[in-house]
Amino acid sequence: MIVALAGGVGGAKLAHGLTRILDPSELVIAVNTGDDFLHLDYFICPDLDSVLYKLADINDTERGWGIRDETWNFMESLKKIGGEDWFQLGDKDLATHIERTRRLTEGQTLSEVTRALCQQHKIAHSIVPMTDHRVGTVVDTKDGDFFFQDYFVRLRCEPTFTGVHYKGMEEAVPAPQFKAALRDPSLTAIMFCPSNPYVSIDPILSVPGVFNALNNAGVPIIAVSPIIGGQAVKGPAAKMMAELGLPVSPRGIAQHYGNLIDGLVIDNEDVDLAEQIMATGIGVQVTNTLMKSAEDEALLAQETLNLAATLSRKGS
Amino acid sequence: MIVALAGGVGGAKLAHGLTRILDPSELVIAVNTGDDFLHLDYFICPDLDSVLYKLADINDTERGWGIRDETWNFMESLKKIGGEDWFQLGDKDLATHIERTRRLTEGQTLSEVTRALCQQHKIAHSIVPMTDHRVGTVVDTKDGDFFFQDYFVRLRCEPTFTGVHYKGMEEAVPAPQFKAALRDPSLTAIMFCPSNPYVSIDPILSVPGVFNALNNAGVPIIAVSPIIGGQAVKGPAAKMMAELGLPVSPRGIAQHYGNLIDGLVIDNEDVDLAEQIMATGIGVQVTNTLMKSAEDEALLAQETLNLAATLSRKGS
Repeated sequence: MIVALAGGVGGAKLAHGLTRILDPSELVIAVNTGDDFLHLDYFICPDLDSVLYKLADINDTERGWGIRDETWNFMESLKKIGGEDWFQLGDKDLATHIERTRRLTEGQTLSEVTRALCQQHKIAHSIVPMTDHRVGTVVDTKDGDFFFQDYFVRLRCEPTFTGVHYKGMEEAVPAPQFKAALRDPSLTAIMFCPSNPYVSIDPILSVPGVFNALNNAGVPIIAVSPIIGGQAVKGPAAKMMAELGLPVSPRGIAQHYGNLIDGLVIDNEDVDLAEQIMATGIGVQVTNTLMKSAEDEALLAQETLNLAATLSRKGS
Repeated sequence: MIVALAGGVGGAKLAHGLTRILDPSELVIAVNTGDDFLHLDYFICPDLDSVLYKLADINDTERGWGIRDETWNFMESLKKIGGEDWFQLGDKDLATHIERTRRLTEGQTLSEVTRALCQQHKIAHSIVPMTDHRVGTVVDTKDGDFFFQDYFVRLRCEPTFTGVHYKGMEEAVPAPQFKAALRDPSLTAIMFCPSNPYVSIDPILSVPGVFNALNNAGVPIIAVSPIIGGQAVKGPAAKMMAELGLPVSPRGIAQHYGNLIDGLVIDNEDVDLAEQIMATGIGVQVTNTLMKSAEDEALLAQETLNLAATLSRKGS
């Protein structure tokens, strides 16, 4: 059994690749919820939705988020009557937020709601939130601290990044299915999808108990670099690394995760970095990591599984 | 100055006719809010919206409710994920409910929210809710009591009607602008639009203080019959009258309002009832009351104003 930690679009792609290889009983996709926020009174889970829409095969590949063949009549009408329009909500996408909020208000946990949405979309594999608690990723910058959506959407990631902290994380616990998966005797590897290390993967690692559970699981932990040739495929990962003074390369990713990972999958473009990374005790697989098609996704998933099969957990 | 009491579509049409004749300072349209309800966590005001969309000239005339050139992608997506789909919500219409709810949650009164929506839609005339309090019209039937939307949408008005009562009406007071208009020295007449007497006009009359204010205003009160040739133009008015044992005709309408009204505008088709109604001490104007065009609306509004000008308040 594999546990994959995923953020938004990059995470969704590798997760999709894994679903093409692994049976539903062989995979748990644990998704970052640190970006979740309340908007117009509904609870929006950007990363869960990215994974959900991708696995339901209704995601918009051009725009990179939301549902394909989307319409924007709600948003346009809302603008006309002076409503809040800084966060784009498609007519179809809105149904997810409203139904999720209705279920949460009824008392269902985010895990239960996510399971219900998966069933409605006929997704057989398990998508679980990192936690059922409400936590918020706060981006620390030289201009002050901002909740992620504020930094990402309103400020277009412009302020200089210095770190992250979290609201509500002390009280959080991992979602039951995530926690159980990390303790499952059949667990064979843990994957960090090619998601932003600071605002997608680290929030998952910061849920109390997760870091220790990963370290104690005794299975190899493999990351897929979200950086290819000095750039992030999507989002502010490269800018953040540069602002922290890290090399904007898979080497910086290796440095960030340090002893936590046993293997790193890097792109062909970064082949010349493989030796330096391996010298730090991390196994490396060089392959195509830019996922442009379902075939790319499945091939990368397979390479990641292959690397895991050759490695064992540090110290085990 | 004229105060017009209005329910949904029929009310909106006559109100629209009145706006073509009267300046914004000469008209207050007081709208039934007894049908208002919470759905998917927003506050929906069907009658306010009917009047609002009509006066904004964005109403759908074919469907008879909602916004024209509407799309239904939110609703279709919601159905797909198992959400509540008994109440149809268009993508554009949804923006009104969400923006209204946001403003109400911020602490604005329904009057303030309605004024803001009018401004956004560039409606110069005053549309005011009958009350800023939350009240609910409950339809009493032989099968039990049902909130209006439940009776109207889910049960398609099938149970035998026996009457109405209200939730929360004891604590309600008229909305400030409505109350002020009824006391305004320049008030010259009060109009009951051709709306359902039981579930559109009576709720307005039942707001504590309104009935007395009408009786004491000293100006003629004119109703426009919503019944033409034994049928309601729209909605369950005719069925309700029949089930109460009233004649389904302007005579039944006159009987229902009794001494409260001084004049009744009836359709050409009902001309043979004019004398019987006049015999009860009610002034009658016979004209075309079926409003198929903006011209029909303005003509009926003018005929209604003309009748008012010839009458004085009972006993004054």
